[in-house]
Amino acid sequence: MPSQDQTLDRLCIDTIRTLSMDAVQAANSGHPGTPMALAPLAYVIFTRHLKHNPADPAWADRDRFILSAGHASMLLYSMLYLTGYGLTLDDIRNFRQWESPTPGHPEYGLTRGVETTTGPLGQGFANGVGMAMAEAHLAARYNRPGHQVIDHYVYAICSDGDLMEGVAAEAASLAGHLKLGKLIYFWDDNRITIEGSTELAFTEDVARRFDAYGWHTHTVEDGNDLEAIDAAIRAAQADPRPSMITVRTVIGYGSPNRAGSEKAHGEPLGEDEIRLTKEALGWPSREPFFVPDQALAHMRASGERGAELQAEWERRMGAFRAAHGDAAAQLDQALSRTLPEGWDSDLPTWSRDDKPIATRAASGKALNAIARRVPWLLGGSADLAGSNNTNIDGGGDFGADNYAGRILHFGVREHAMGSLMNGMTLHGGVRVFGGTFLIFSEYMRPPVRLAALMEQPTIYVYTHDSVGLGEDGPTHQPVEQLPSLRAIPGLIDLRPADANETVEAWRFAMQHTEGPVFLSLTRQALPILDRDGLAPAAGLRRGAYVLADAEGGEPQVILIATGSEVSVALQAREQLAAEGIRARVVSLPSWALFSRESREYRDQVLPPAVRARVSIEAAHPMGWHRWVGSEGEVIGISRFGASAPAKRVFQELGLSADNVTAKAKALLGLGDGQAEHGRAAAGPAAHGTDEKSA
Amino acid sequence: MPSQDQTLDRLCIDTIRTLSMDAVQAANSGHPGTPMALAPLAYVIFTRHLKHNPADPAWADRDRFILSAGHASMLLYSMLYLTGYGLTLDDIRNFRQWESPTPGHPEYGLTRGVETTTGPLGQGFANGVGMAMAEAHLAARYNRPGHQVIDHYVYAICSDGDLMEGVAAEAASLAGHLKLGKLIYFWDDNRITIEGSTELAFTEDVARRFDAYGWHTHTVEDGNDLEAIDAAIRAAQADPRPSMITVRTVIGYGSPNRAGSEKAHGEPLGEDEIRLTKEALGWPSREPFFVPDQALAHMRASGERGAELQAEWERRMGAFRAAHGDAAAQLDQALSRTLPEGWDSDLPTWSRDDKPIATRAASGKALNAIARRVPWLLGGSADLAGSNNTNIDGGGDFGADNYAGRILHFGVREHAMGSLMNGMTLHGGVRVFGGTFLIFSEYMRPPVRLAALMEQPTIYVYTHDSVGLGEDGPTHQPVEQLPSLRAIPGLIDLRPADANETVEAWRFAMQHTEGPVFLSLTRQALPILDRDGLAPAAGLRRGAYVLADAEGGEPQVILIATGSEVSVALQAREQLAAEGIRARVVSLPSWALFSRESREYRDQVLPPAVRARVSIEAAHPMGWHRWVGSEGEVIGISRFGASAPAKRVFQELGLSADNVTAKAKALLGLGDGQAEHGRAAAGPAAHGTDEKSA
Repeated sequence: MPSQDQTLDRLCIDTIRTLSMDAVQAANSGHPGTPMALAPLAYVIFTRHLKHNPADPAWADRDRFILSAGHASMLLYSMLYLTGYGLTLDDIRNFRQWESPTPGHPEYGLTRGVETTTGPLGQGFANGVGMAMAEAHLAARYNRPGHQVIDHYVYAICSDGDLMEGVAAEAASLAGHLKLGKLIYFWDDNRITIEGSTELAFTEDVARRFDAYGWHTHTVEDGNDLEAIDAAIRAAQADPRPSMITVRTVIGYGSPNRAGSEKAHGEPLGEDEIRLTKEALGWPSREPFFVPDQALAHMRASGERGAELQAEWERRMGAFRAAHGDAAAQLDQALSRTLPEGWDSDLPTWSRDDKPIATRAASGKALNAIARRVPWLLGGSADLAGSNNTNIDGGGDFGADNYAGRILHFGVREHAMGSLMNGMTLHGGVRVFGGTFLIFSEYMRPPVRLAALMEQPTIYVYTHDSVGLGEDGPTHQPVEQLPSLRAIPGLIDLRPADANETVEAWRFAMQHTEGPVFLSLTRQALPILDRDGLAPAAGLRRGAYVLADAEGGEPQVILIATGSEVSVALQAREQLAAEGIRARVVSLPSWALFSRESREYRDQVLPPAVRARVSIEAAHPMGWHRWVGSEGEVIGISRFGASAPAKRVFQELGLSADNVTAKAKALLGLGDGQAEHGRAAAGPAAHGTDEKSA
Repeated sequence: MPSQDQTLDRLCIDTIRTLSMDAVQAANSGHPGTPMALAPLAYVIFTRHLKHNPADPAWADRDRFILSAGHASMLLYSMLYLTGYGLTLDDIRNFRQWESPTPGHPEYGLTRGVETTTGPLGQGFANGVGMAMAEAHLAARYNRPGHQVIDHYVYAICSDGDLMEGVAAEAASLAGHLKLGKLIYFWDDNRITIEGSTELAFTEDVARRFDAYGWHTHTVEDGNDLEAIDAAIRAAQADPRPSMITVRTVIGYGSPNRAGSEKAHGEPLGEDEIRLTKEALGWPSREPFFVPDQALAHMRASGERGAELQAEWERRMGAFRAAHGDAAAQLDQALSRTLPEGWDSDLPTWSRDDKPIATRAASGKALNAIARRVPWLLGGSADLAGSNNTNIDGGGDFGADNYAGRILHFGVREHAMGSLMNGMTLHGGVRVFGGTFLIFSEYMRPPVRLAALMEQPTIYVYTHDSVGLGEDGPTHQPVEQLPSLRAIPGLIDLRPADANETVEAWRFAMQHTEGPVFLSLTRQALPILDRDGLAPAAGLRRGAYVLADAEGGEPQVILIATGSEVSVALQAREQLAAEGIRARVVSLPSWALFSRESREYRDQVLPPAVRARVSIEAAHPMGWHRWVGSEGEVIGISRFGASAPAKRVFQELGLSADNVTAKAKALLGLGDGQAEHGRAAAGPAAHGTDEKSA
């Protein structure tokens, strides 16, 4: 006969199960089976181990809990409701409805207690690794003997799908390498995927794989065995390696006709099966959303104990502040992301007499000028640090023997890099940048999107940003990447035209805390724009600005460019001036920022009356007609690049001042649009590179 | 003292090394170190094992050799030149120059003997797995007792970077699961990455990991030990599992000052170091690009033996043809991708009386109608087959116990799916489709791009193609995916408006063999457009067509839509007609195809004189101004979606006929652009969903 405690445990667990199936039924969509299977696991984590305070979900030293298997969102919502995060039973009833805090998949920022947005598989897994990296870093930097102010675990529940995704493999390899012992992960080994048995596609030896990564592994044979789960967690806490605990479960546990089947995965059980399941569980009520008082009281009490834990930590922080005021002040600043006074006072400037410099190189200098004054800025590259200019001088390599290091070596793992950056940023206490070639942004789109969705201020340093990278060829030359990144809502694009705009891009990036930004930077050297005769680089903050206006009257034509093509446009302006044609040059480093400006400002920069407009950008023309209009001309690249020295590629693809000039004249009825000099419009590659609107 | 054979081996190997360093030096960019390290391995593979005929690189049953570490391209070019693929010494001298067949990274289609385009790491690894899947499938379907007409290996050389990338992990797990014993892979274990030692980020136990996947593993302690390499290959050939052979190498082998350092990786050695290296190797000449006659003769002779192997295979094929004429004919058809007569005669049609049907469901029916008549069409899903409607009825599950199966279970591995599809398609003998939700196209962008670059006819079935998927919420609702896929040069977008356009999309896809296509399909049911009053669905082939013209005169306004929004536009047309406003509706299912049409046809569909245009698409507005022009109105979604039932989301985001009508009237000066009914323009979400050009 079960003890009273056991009976209560069971009642709580079945509350999670029944809430989950009822909510999915009410929404007529969702995933009931996994919450039903994992209720015991979540119960043990939340009530026996998780250091959290539902009354203050922002407590810096809380344990993090991640439901990487985000489709099982009702498991998390049930826990948040039951342990007292402020979610109500009505919110549960409104599962998956417009503007409810209980969306189909957990969304950070929408629901108190949700640590990260999950659903796209593998992301939560990697986010957790990033959180553990941040924890290790802050602990190494700020803890002092007798003052353990940062010391928490990261728990995550992962599905088969999470472990099949490559991003999780990348993150797992790095976590093992970094010996992130605070990671305690659970694999929901239910042997079921959407298409059927995991035997269809997933028969690897998962534990052995994690063992190969350097993880501690452990198996719980029965996912309903609370003591076995508890013992596994204790073993994991004691082990210095990251832990992967295999938990054998039955999807849809309790459902007489659906348990153990893929049918329990992604659709409501149905009224009849819910009734049968509640009977099988010995559930005391037929009312949907019935929550036994005892269960709620027990769970809420467990949540309330968190307040004591936090109070104890506050006392520790007090002692830390008293003993190590400077470190504590820096930690506070880091946690609140407050830029220290004078943070940007070392930023370099370049003058017209300076030698041409690649914007990636200028970025490296700007970054280092900031890093010297902002100690909680850290980052690195997916094995291209030297090329991306992302090294922090004297920052030290972050590693198992030096978690205080500020240089992150992600390895050739762009996708994990993006997801780890999200995890670190969500954790807080750090500001993170990550670099790779612009082309390889393609390997990391899912986390970039999630950073935008979560409004997390990650900074992507994307170098080698056009066919201007030259010889490495079309596999490495971005073409469609600029437009496709610009299409991500909330992601700020920054493609500076020279070294000084690059500094402004970094200045903006550091001050922008509402979402991610990316810098698009050249491999090749660019001339320093002569700001004596041109508008200041600070115009970058408005997204677009009149860099050089027409002389002697209203502009007849507007030339619009970004990044490395701005100096090409300036050249064209001179060519046109020599022929008596008045051209304005607009630098448009950020479409996102320009779009946020007032209609008035936008009309100042691009006067509606001036319809003759030519844009030039070494990227796919997608989107440019918005700025250029129906009557203008878009010079871009609607084909793949080619392996050859950069200058040759630019010339062959028509990315020349001659071509801009020719197109501008044609728009004004002064020519046929063919460049007089150079091969721009004559070579075989020219086909399709210019685009007229329909 | 070395034997004569050993001396000759060494001379050949050093020829590969010196050609590689000389070519990188001449180009003043590239990667000398890895070709120098791997020359012995490539030499053993090509001269002792590879079943290939340089005179006929298209021989169907050849072994495939993949240089997944594509940056080491000079290794491959050296081998292709030396074994007689038609590459000349001048081509080697022109390494990385405009239009030379020796680009920075190997490009399929540009250079005879290059089996796939590599450079983006991990892709070649996964391509090879796809090739082995195709080999296993063709062998299972066509070989008969006494007639082994398909029987070849897939060799691949992988770098550390390849093995760090998640896509390789995904493919490796599946390869182990599928027991693809024809895979013989080599890991170049040089302990160096671009940022320095692999100790910085990559210390997992690689062999143990592959063991966990079910691979055979083996180590060659010295990458210069030809007999050890040879023995390892023989062991791999004998093992029924896929094989991963660790080869310990020294990057930049032979270079006195750069060997074993990351400095040997990605830059020329320099004239001085080349001289020192040649001295250290005992190289007989100081001339760059010196090729000893003996070495060339020996390598060419090894290549020429391939002709005998192929002749022998042709004899086997002859016997096979005689004994199994039907199977042989089908194999020939498959290899040449010739659609059998009547291949499309079972394609369904829907009439206005049919119930509304989701285009994903119509796609499933079309696909099955084709699959019944095209036996070499196969494919599957990344664990969403039921939702993507990608199952071939009665096709059988492809697996280690049934390689003849036509239903591929990729698991939750979208990235690998894309790369495996490329490998299978490159291999030939199969036409492959792969499905997932449109949002998860983000996980597989690199191989989609490579399919386009390689002009491989893969078919992506992307369902749940808008916020219309409803409750799963913003993590699963695509917004920016349509424009960002449309920006990939050469990729054909197909977003059919109803079931009949979906059939046309499949008809087009099967006939389009010059590159990849994707189908963007709804989760939600769409009405069958009444073709009695509308233009036929075959208009899809031209990308856009006038679906319903204005009645009673020239159109005053053009409504342009794709996919699920076409019926919304038709509704708006009726609303406008009721108010006496003449509107034309254009269905624009494919931007790529419409862009390829003549200016004349495009002007017929979108007459330049009609400037009042409204587009509606449940996607990010990026790119729409090209069709809508400066004076039109773009209705799209420039924010993330939300979790709620689909109808509610559409309404909240302004994707309604009322909104289209209101915007159309406003353009004609007949209203303020606010929908009179519904919440379209009033709700909080409406902000930012409509976009005017600058």
